[in-house]
Amino acid sequence: MGTIDEDSLELHKAHHGKLEVASKVPMNDMHDLALAYTPGVGAVSVAIGKDAALARDYTMKRNTVAIVTDGSAILGLGNLGPEAALPVMEGKAILFKKFAGVDAFPICLTTQDTEEIIATVKRITPGFGGINLEDISAPRCFEIERRLQAELEIPVMHDDQRGTAVVVLAGLINVLKIKSARADEMRVVVSGAGAAGAAVSKMLVEYGFRDLVVCDRAGAIGPARTDLNSEKSALAQLTNPRGVTGTLEDIVKDANIFIGVSGPGILTDAMVRTMAPQPVIFALANPVPEIMPDVAVGAGAFIIATGRSDFPNQINNVLAFPGIFRGALDRGIARFTEPMFLRAAEALAARVAHPDPEHILPNVFDAGVADAVADAIR
Amino acid sequence: MGTIDEDSLELHKAHHGKLEVASKVPMNDMHDLALAYTPGVGAVSVAIGKDAALARDYTMKRNTVAIVTDGSAILGLGNLGPEAALPVMEGKAILFKKFAGVDAFPICLTTQDTEEIIATVKRITPGFGGINLEDISAPRCFEIERRLQAELEIPVMHDDQRGTAVVVLAGLINVLKIKSARADEMRVVVSGAGAAGAAVSKMLVEYGFRDLVVCDRAGAIGPARTDLNSEKSALAQLTNPRGVTGTLEDIVKDANIFIGVSGPGILTDAMVRTMAPQPVIFALANPVPEIMPDVAVGAGAFIIATGRSDFPNQINNVLAFPGIFRGALDRGIARFTEPMFLRAAEALAARVAHPDPEHILPNVFDAGVADAVADAIR
Repeated sequence: MGTIDEDSLELHKAHHGKLEVASKVPMNDMHDLALAYTPGVGAVSVAIGKDAALARDYTMKRNTVAIVTDGSAILGLGNLGPEAALPVMEGKAILFKKFAGVDAFPICLTTQDTEEIIATVKRITPGFGGINLEDISAPRCFEIERRLQAELEIPVMHDDQRGTAVVVLAGLINVLKIKSARADEMRVVVSGAGAAGAAVSKMLVEYGFRDLVVCDRAGAIGPARTDLNSEKSALAQLTNPRGVTGTLEDIVKDANIFIGVSGPGILTDAMVRTMAPQPVIFALANPVPEIMPDVAVGAGAFIIATGRSDFPNQINNVLAFPGIFRGALDRGIARFTEPMFLRAAEALAARVAHPDPEHILPNVFDAGVADAVADAIR
Repeated sequence: MGTIDEDSLELHKAHHGKLEVASKVPMNDMHDLALAYTPGVGAVSVAIGKDAALARDYTMKRNTVAIVTDGSAILGLGNLGPEAALPVMEGKAILFKKFAGVDAFPICLTTQDTEEIIATVKRITPGFGGINLEDISAPRCFEIERRLQAELEIPVMHDDQRGTAVVVLAGLINVLKIKSARADEMRVVVSGAGAAGAAVSKMLVEYGFRDLVVCDRAGAIGPARTDLNSEKSALAQLTNPRGVTGTLEDIVKDANIFIGVSGPGILTDAMVRTMAPQPVIFALANPVPEIMPDVAVGAGAFIIATGRSDFPNQINNVLAFPGIFRGALDRGIARFTEPMFLRAAEALAARVAHPDPEHILPNVFDAGVADAVADAIR
C-alpha cells in the first residue's frame, strides 16, 4: 500500500485502464453467430431502417450515454488535454454502471472549439440515448450545453453544472431543515463563477434563495461591474439584489451560507468569524477545499461540507448523475428541464430521514439513492 | 424457435441490444472510489497530461477500437442510415471481444459527407487505439480510409475492403495448394467493383495473380471503358492485362476462378459450364450468393465458397479483423501496410494443415486463428 496517488497509478497500469466492452448475449457457436451477427442481424437492421425509433427497442442506444469532454477543465487540474481526461471519464463510466446500470462510454475530443465540439457531438448521436458533457471549461460549456440540448432529441447535461447544482441544493434543503429556516431568509455567498458556480447560483435562486451574491476573482458580481462576459452579466441580473460590491472578504460578512466552487484556501478562519451565527460552509474545491473542515469548525462553522470522501458531508456528483440519466433514459425524454433537476434535488434530500450537521446527504454507497433520483426524473 | 430472422429480432429486443460497458476494477467502497475516481485518478490525469503517450499504459486506449459507420452500405442491404447500422456494429464489437479480447465500440454517424466523416473521426481519436471503418459505401470509403490513415497516428482499416481481401486471399492460397497451381497460371474474374471488389483485386495482384479482370454492372473494367471514376480507372491500370471487353458472361469463359462480391444470382449454371476445368467459385454476396452452392456444384464447380455459415467454406471477415487489430494494438503500430495484410492472409491460410475442396479455411470458432493473424501483424 502506497499513497492514494501511488495506488491509483498502480491500479490503472495493472489493468490498462478500467473500462471494457462486454457482450450481453452468448457467442459460442454458429447458431449464436447467426442470431447476433449475420445473417440474422440483417432483419434487425431492416426493421430499424424502416423506423429509426425502433433502435430504442433493438439496440444498446436506450441504455447508453456518451461522456464527452475536450479535456479543458479536468477536475480542478485545468486544461490537460483529451488523453489526460480519459482516466476520469472511465471512472465516471464505472459509476454510471455501478449505481444506475447505465452503459456510458468516454468520447474525448481533440478540439476545444465550441462549434467543432457541437458539430462533432451532433454527428455521433445515433448510438447514444443521452450526452453527459464533462470537464469542459467555462464559458464554452454553457453555449455547448445550451445548443446541443436545443438541437438534439436526446437529453444533454453538463454534469459539472447540473450534477453539482443538484447535489448542492439537496444538501442545502437539509441544511434548512436542520436550521429550521426558509431559503428566502438566508444570505448566500457563492465563491466562483465558472461552470459549477453559475449553475449552482441559478438553481438556488430558482429554488427560492433570494439574497445570493456570486463572487469571482474580481469580487462581487453585480450591476457595478463593467468587465463581465455574457454569462456573468446574466448572473448579475439574477443575483445580488442588494447590489453589494467588494471582495469576498467584504461580502462574506453576515452571510449565513458560503458555497465555494473556486480554489484552495480562499476562505480564512477570520472570514468565517465575520459570518452570521451558525454559519454553513460548503467548501467544494477539489482536492484541497476553500477551507479545511477543522479550521472552519474552529472558527465556529455550524455545518461544513466538502467534495472529499475523507470528511463528513461529501458533496459528490455521483449522488446525482447516475439517477438523472437512468430516469431520462427510462422515460425516453428528449431534453432535461429545470423542474426535473429541482425534483431530483428534493428526492436526494429526502433520502436522509433525519438530517443532522454531519449528515446532510446520503452516502454515495447507500442503496436506493439513484433509484430515488431516477424516479424524480421519470 | 422461429426463423433465424424472428429469433434474431427476439434476441435483440429481449436484451435491448447486445453490448454493454463493464468495469475491470472493483467499486464497492470508498477506498475503491478513491482509487478509480477522485481523488486518486487526479494523479493519473496529471501523468498523462505531462506525456500523452502514457495513455497507452494507464487507460483503455491501447485495447479499444472505434467501429465507425455512416450506415450507407449495411451488409448487402444498402443505405439504411446510422441507427440501422447499430445491430451490425454491436455484433462486430462482440466478435472483436470474443475472438481477440479487443474492446470495440460502435460510433454511428449522422453524416455521409466524406470531409465531415474524416473530420469527425479525427476529433474522437484520443480514446481509441485503432479505427475500424465499416459499411461505408464506395467510392467514399476509399478516400476516407486513405486520408484517415495518412493523417492519424493510430491504425485505420476499412474492414469491408481489407478484411474481405485478407480472407479471400487466404482461401485462394489454399485453393492453389489443392490445385497444385501457381497464382500466375490462373485466370481470375472478380464480379463487383465496390469496396470489397476493388480491395480484393488489388490484393490478389499484389500477391501474384496476373490475369485478373474486374467486372462491374457495365462489364469488364479496362482501357476501353470511358465511364470510370478514379478508383475504377486505377483498377483498369492494375488489372485486365489482355484488355478484354464484354459482359460478365463473356469474360467468365475459360476463367479458373470466379470471385463474386456483387449481388444475388449473377452467376448462372450455364456460365459456370463455360469456365475452365475444375472451376473455383467464391460467391460472397450476402445473404443470397451469386450462385447457390448446389447449382454451382451441379454445373461442375470444383470448389465453392460463400459468405454463409450454412455451407462449407465460409468466407467470413471475422477470421481476419479481430486478429489484425489485436496485433496492431499490441505492437502499437501507427498504420497498417500492405505487407501486413499479405502476411495475415498467409498466416490464416496456414491454419488449415490439409486443405481440401470443402475445407479451404479454418472454422470461425477454431482456437488460435486470431492469435495466428495477430502474430503476422505483430
